[in-house]
Amino acid sequence: MSERYTLGKLADTLGVDARGDRETPLIGVSTLEKAGPQELSFLANPNYKRFLKISQAGAIILHPDQAENTTRPVLLSTNPYATWAKALTLIYPQSLPEPGIAPSASIHPTAQIHETASIGEHCVIEEDCIVGAHAVVGPQCVLEMGAKVGQYTRLVARVFVGKHCQLGDRVIIHPGVVIGADGFGIALDQGHWQKVPQLGCVVIGDDCEIGANTTIDRGALGNTVLGHDVRVDNQVQIAHNVEIGDHTAIAGCVGIAGSTTIGSYCMIAGACGIGGHIRITDQVIVTAMSTVLNSIESPGTYGSGIPAQPHQHWKRILVRLAKLDHWINRIKKLEKGSSSS
Amino acid sequence: MSERYTLGKLADTLGVDARGDRETPLIGVSTLEKAGPQELSFLANPNYKRFLKISQAGAIILHPDQAENTTRPVLLSTNPYATWAKALTLIYPQSLPEPGIAPSASIHPTAQIHETASIGEHCVIEEDCIVGAHAVVGPQCVLEMGAKVGQYTRLVARVFVGKHCQLGDRVIIHPGVVIGADGFGIALDQGHWQKVPQLGCVVIGDDCEIGANTTIDRGALGNTVLGHDVRVDNQVQIAHNVEIGDHTAIAGCVGIAGSTTIGSYCMIAGACGIGGHIRITDQVIVTAMSTVLNSIESPGTYGSGIPAQPHQHWKRILVRLAKLDHWINRIKKLEKGSSSS
Amino acid sequence: MSERYTLGKLADTLGVDARGDRETPLIGVSTLEKAGPQELSFLANPNYKRFLKISQAGAIILHPDQAENTTRPVLLSTNPYATWAKALTLIYPQSLPEPGIAPSASIHPTAQIHETASIGEHCVIEEDCIVGAHAVVGPQCVLEMGAKVGQYTRLVARVFVGKHCQLGDRVIIHPGVVIGADGFGIALDQGHWQKVPQLGCVVIGDDCEIGANTTIDRGALGNTVLGHDVRVDNQVQIAHNVEIGDHTAIAGCVGIAGSTTIGSYCMIAGACGIGGHIRITDQVIVTAMSTVLNSIESPGTYGSGIPAQPHQHWKRILVRLAKLDHWINRIKKLEKGSSSS
Repeated sequence: MSERYTLGKLADTLGVDARGDRETPLIGVSTLEKAGPQELSFLANPNYKRFLKISQAGAIILHPDQAENTTRPVLLSTNPYATWAKALTLIYPQSLPEPGIAPSASIHPTAQIHETASIGEHCVIEEDCIVGAHAVVGPQCVLEMGAKVGQYTRLVARVFVGKHCQLGDRVIIHPGVVIGADGFGIALDQGHWQKVPQLGCVVIGDDCEIGANTTIDRGALGNTVLGHDVRVDNQVQIAHNVEIGDHTAIAGCVGIAGSTTIGSYCMIAGACGIGGHIRITDQVIVTAMSTVLNSIESPGTYGSGIPAQPHQHWKRILVRLAKLDHWINRIKKLEKGSSSS
Repeated sequence: MSERYTLGKLADTLGVDARGDRETPLIGVSTLEKAGPQELSFLANPNYKRFLKISQAGAIILHPDQAENTTRPVLLSTNPYATWAKALTLIYPQSLPEPGIAPSASIHPTAQIHETASIGEHCVIEEDCIVGAHAVVGPQCVLEMGAKVGQYTRLVARVFVGKHCQLGDRVIIHPGVVIGADGFGIALDQGHWQKVPQLGCVVIGDDCEIGANTTIDRGALGNTVLGHDVRVDNQVQIAHNVEIGDHTAIAGCVGIAGSTTIGSYCMIAGACGIGGHIRITDQVIVTAMSTVLNSIESPGTYGSGIPAQPHQHWKRILVRLAKLDHWINRIKKLEKGSSSS
Repeated sequence: MSERYTLGKLADTLGVDARGDRETPLIGVSTLEKAGPQELSFLANPNYKRFLKISQAGAIILHPDQAENTTRPVLLSTNPYATWAKALTLIYPQSLPEPGIAPSASIHPTAQIHETASIGEHCVIEEDCIVGAHAVVGPQCVLEMGAKVGQYTRLVARVFVGKHCQLGDRVIIHPGVVIGADGFGIALDQGHWQKVPQLGCVVIGDDCEIGANTTIDRGALGNTVLGHDVRVDNQVQIAHNVEIGDHTAIAGCVGIAGSTTIGSYCMIAGACGIGGHIRITDQVIVTAMSTVLNSIESPGTYGSGIPAQPHQHWKRILVRLAKLDHWINRIKKLEKGSSSS
């Protein structure tokens, strides 16, 4: 399955400098600890530096600063993790299905499927959909009326794309994703909820990746918009009319409420809850399991997650916390006494 | 796609008063800021009041109190958001698929599908299922044995309804929803988990809406029950034997543990965790990302979410919080010193 | 649907002692409160003890200590909940589909489907997959190339199993589960995200159960691994290279970040967030909605969830909490004043 590279050929293809026998064959990859003499490895996270000395890897991608810490062949990169990612892409090229439409797919006659695209088994593609060149729509996907899938975009399997929603080029969508379900719009009317029709779409830019079972709702009036190169992990919920800027990354289990705008190059860690109708500027990092309820206007790191503690200790803190106001009043009283004395 | 309305016809159909030329055509809708002279708009959220003066909308639905703040034609309503919802429903009537059964659907001969119902491609409908009049079962749904879908109910696509579960009339279920998977019932038996068979069902009342990728487990002995007009957003988890009262609304990413009862007209904000075996009375509001572990017996608003703060500041608070008990003991010591002096 | 048992036959089959007329027919089950004279019930949770005196149940499974508190026939067990689970399994044996391959399933000719296995409608099973004896692959499942399903394993419906992922024997997977989607691996490279190919698999041991819409990502280099008898509820997210020990139970909506190891016999309550690259030892309990960011090296109970409080009260605590550092400085100042006096 893997492509055959030598150290020299890999260095040339990646455009990086190598040290060691350029003819060393690299026929697989592994961790520093486990790699054998024909396997490529890498060092990016300093926590694993201790394995450098003992590694038997055929070649190691690492920062030039670390080159002296090993006698193994090396590939030098100032960004070893990105170089590693590129090397993997070379050694393990993705095998995509052949172009063509699986016999069990249901395709509306007005849908435009590019001749280089692949449509998997049991797909349903409704009227006026467009599937671009080299796109792969895996098995059991549903594209509702007017949905558009860009070039080289890949829906792995069982992806739902609602009416008139648009995916850019080179997008990857993992199984179970629902794009363009109705946003949660309800108005209380004489004691009953009245559904507010959701008329907007979802528009996803180029080079985005959306993790398994994530949901992105269509806009109420305007659209829900992901820019380019937005990376979203699994089980994220993105509500109607949210806008997410280019290159922002969102980890698993995050929920983002309606009409919130998130800037570019933000990083939202796992399980955060982001409130509705707020604006988060560019280059904001939110730490895990935090709750963002107000707009954030300055780049930087923000959080409100509380690390778990031994239960008995935490219970005691909770008791104190619940009475915090009381204790602060006692401080104030002490201060009064102290100043009056 | 939109229906043609004039201001006068729309006012009459909605049963509200209008001001302005009744012949004004309204051929679309938009926000106050963007609406053109043939588009309908509305003002419900006071945050958008500033757009009232500059709006070019063909007509604006607003509260009579606001009527003097614009010279545009208006539709007067004491509940503008609900009136807006109804107007959208009129102008953009939902286009539903034709009655009939798609050729690729697998329908058991004992299933009773009403002749006015529509069954989408690749659906699987098992023995003894009942699908009511005008119901729409979208593509790739699975109805297990004995499942029942009420009249005018719509399963958008790829909805799973487990054995003997029941959906009322006019219910909407979005893609990826799983109704009636087994509840999480396990008993530790000599070091191994023994699965507790889950014998109950899920029963969902009329006029409910369930968001994408939400899961509602079947009851262990009795049923898991949603009343009428319950509105549930995306990625909500409702465990076995939960009961939810009429008209309650639950936002995205909420998890509700087993055997908990939630009253009527409650509103649970996003990403809350509700513990098991508790009882929440009617008209309770829980704010975002709160944890409810005890029963709530009085209507009102409750919460425990903490808004995110700059990281350095929050880290300092966490250090203090972890030692809260210690600091309170120091207050007590000061008080002793103070009283003894 | 239920099997016919008498008190005596049930006691013998379960291997427990009975008290009362061994010929009592038991044709159904119910709660203590509702059970009629031909229905089996049980008492495990002491909260329900009050129903013991009034219960009309045909027989009650309970601990010998409780036997004197009822005059009804009883089945005696030192672990009544586990005995109840086994009794249900006897009285309501699961009806599984007949062996065979549904006509609409798409099976690659190289896939090895055991003749006793059942493959549901609209399944897609790719090359080199293996489905073991008595396995049930319900409707609309996708098994990608090389996936392996063990003996007596049951994929209820619409389960995705990615390339080369492996499920052990007697595993149950509920609808909407995605096993083996790509992990969230991205490397920033000159302002763009570079996808890090995810080369590992997911390996799930025997006797595991995975709840609806849960996602388990494939490993980046090595595998994501669940041991034996791991029990996972709905909507849980398990990231790449997580390892979970035997007999651990994880409740709904938990998220576990990448490369974290969780020991055996742990219990993670609902909606917890577990950080990445940490190690949790055996027999750790984490309480609901807690955030675990550091390794836990001692068995025991840990938590950081905060129970919801009335909103006005909580708001006041939040104000105090945000200034906690300030208040503690005021304590310190008081102490200085006090010691100097």
